[in-house]
Amino acid sequence: MIKKITTAAYLLATSVMADQLADQAKAAGLAPIPKATAALYKMVDNPDNSMNAEKVELGKKLFFDPRLSKSALISCNTCHNLATGGVDGVPAATGHMWRHNPHHLNSPTVYNAVFASRQFWDGRDPDLEAQAQGPMQAPPEMAAKPEHVAAVVNSIPGYVRAFRHAYSNPEMKPTFKDVADVIAVFERTLVTPSRFDEYLGGCDKALGKEEKAGLKTFIEKGCTSCHTGVAVGGGMQPFPLMGKFKYADVGDFKGDANGLVKVPTLRNIDETAPYFHNGTVWSLKEAIKIMGETQLGIKLSDKETASIETFLKSLNGEKPAVDYPQLPARTDATPLPDLN
Amino acid sequence: MIKKITTAAYLLATSVMADQLADQAKAAGLAPIPKATAALYKMVDNPDNSMNAEKVELGKKLFFDPRLSKSALISCNTCHNLATGGVDGVPAATGHMWRHNPHHLNSPTVYNAVFASRQFWDGRDPDLEAQAQGPMQAPPEMAAKPEHVAAVVNSIPGYVRAFRHAYSNPEMKPTFKDVADVIAVFERTLVTPSRFDEYLGGCDKALGKEEKAGLKTFIEKGCTSCHTGVAVGGGMQPFPLMGKFKYADVGDFKGDANGLVKVPTLRNIDETAPYFHNGTVWSLKEAIKIMGETQLGIKLSDKETASIETFLKSLNGEKPAVDYPQLPARTDATPLPDLN
Repeated sequence: MIKKITTAAYLLATSVMADQLADQAKAAGLAPIPKATAALYKMVDNPDNSMNAEKVELGKKLFFDPRLSKSALISCNTCHNLATGGVDGVPAATGHMWRHNPHHLNSPTVYNAVFASRQFWDGRDPDLEAQAQGPMQAPPEMAAKPEHVAAVVNSIPGYVRAFRHAYSNPEMKPTFKDVADVIAVFERTLVTPSRFDEYLGGCDKALGKEEKAGLKTFIEKGCTSCHTGVAVGGGMQPFPLMGKFKYADVGDFKGDANGLVKVPTLRNIDETAPYFHNGTVWSLKEAIKIMGETQLGIKLSDKETASIETFLKSLNGEKPAVDYPQLPARTDATPLPDLN
Repeated sequence: MIKKITTAAYLLATSVMADQLADQAKAAGLAPIPKATAALYKMVDNPDNSMNAEKVELGKKLFFDPRLSKSALISCNTCHNLATGGVDGVPAATGHMWRHNPHHLNSPTVYNAVFASRQFWDGRDPDLEAQAQGPMQAPPEMAAKPEHVAAVVNSIPGYVRAFRHAYSNPEMKPTFKDVADVIAVFERTLVTPSRFDEYLGGCDKALGKEEKAGLKTFIEKGCTSCHTGVAVGGGMQPFPLMGKFKYADVGDFKGDANGLVKVPTLRNIDETAPYFHNGTVWSLKEAIKIMGETQLGIKLSDKETASIETFLKSLNGEKPAVDYPQLPARTDATPLPDLN
């Protein structure tokens, strides 16, 4: 009997502690990916580019279609590979003619990008619709003129039909902007709920003891001052790493007009090496230590670092199932690839 | 009553004609992709590298994994894109450092490649297991040393576990050859049955009147002297196009030791432009005319050409459904990409 009471008391105490930690996490601004479909839909949908199933499917096809690029060899998925955490796994984005990003910028993950407050490392675009127009045109990425993208899509009857269906507009001639818009709609579906979300949603068992300890360290050391919200990141912050350390030798990126840099999401961070805007660090532990030193002015011990890493791995989320598409065939009217 | 008899007589006559044409096609060596699973399995399986579901799934992951390449940017799917007819849609294969195939050779489709009697344009490899080792190593393609491929796979526990499971060998340390072997197993599943197969299998209605007329032209003009078998191609033949016409200006490919060249499959030919070993022709109609002139010594009329094209489009097959994979994450032991 005494045993039973003790166990019950222990469980109660643990539960209170758990609630306290979850409350502490929420107070620090961490927020879950909603479980309820309606709430999630409301969070990811853009009223100016509203979602429907046909747009998602069409956007998926265009996301995977290398024929939108100048060479016909590079698709959105080349740098934001859905098989590998939504990234390319190389330090700097590499595209048309094997050119690298001129500022040596690392490709951010497309998973959960919808939760970021701004897009691109310098936050220059407000949403995915605007963002999607960038890499299609960038000379070291897909290197396509907007007219090229529109010409490719309009030369393929399967695409024109799909746009007309998705937009309920039998006269539609899809533009470059329309292509970016449906790609953005698809990208808005690329969210990856994890055990951490279940935990924040009230399921105490969703995280293990070590993961909870890591979460506590993560909060108490101040990581949540930048890595917060649903994205566990996604806002704009000063980044003193630039101009310091060896990493300053790589690239000339200086952030936005105020020197602010987009905070990467930490969701699936275990799958998205290399780290930082210039992709110079491959070890997650090393990245955590550098962040402590440069952003928080503290030296994290090996134990604290390992504990934070343990928590971060609980942010590895479930990826949406994606049927690899069959793309509608080109026609004699489709512009030929230009590999130069 | 007379009407009924007439209709019956007409149907009988058509049916006999249909049977005659199907028989004529079979006599010309054309053969269907088997409908019965056991027969198909027997046809595509390699007893020296026998198929199982675990190998297929693992092979699919490796087929899509760019980390096998030197740069970590190029996968089998880059040049043999399952979304676009199993090809890259550019004249010459383009890979590591944007290098092009040195002989300006066009990437053949991976769909139905299992039905070819030899692999590569010069037929130098007997099967897909041998073939798969080539592009992984070729400097202008994936540019990886065999040791690199083995090191990547062995550094990723998810892959090692999958190999051990697939081969029922708890001690297995996968080699470069093992990687090529499971990729080949996956490729053996990439067959695309079409309406033409249903027709050869006895379903007269599977082809329309125009398609049947095209098939008849295709046989009677002699196209089946090279484009025959299940692959509607896939054997080795002399190719007089080389050394003639403007196409001789592109590349220096001369076939095998006897000047023989692999005959491309015509399955899904409508989806796999550009055509010929050097990818110089984008129009299927133009390709048909050139083949008539150079291979058969005849000038096909516009009508005959269009008729053959109509038949060829009936070879567009149903592609196997492929769930885009989630690849197991790299570890600190995984070799870093080398983009140079």
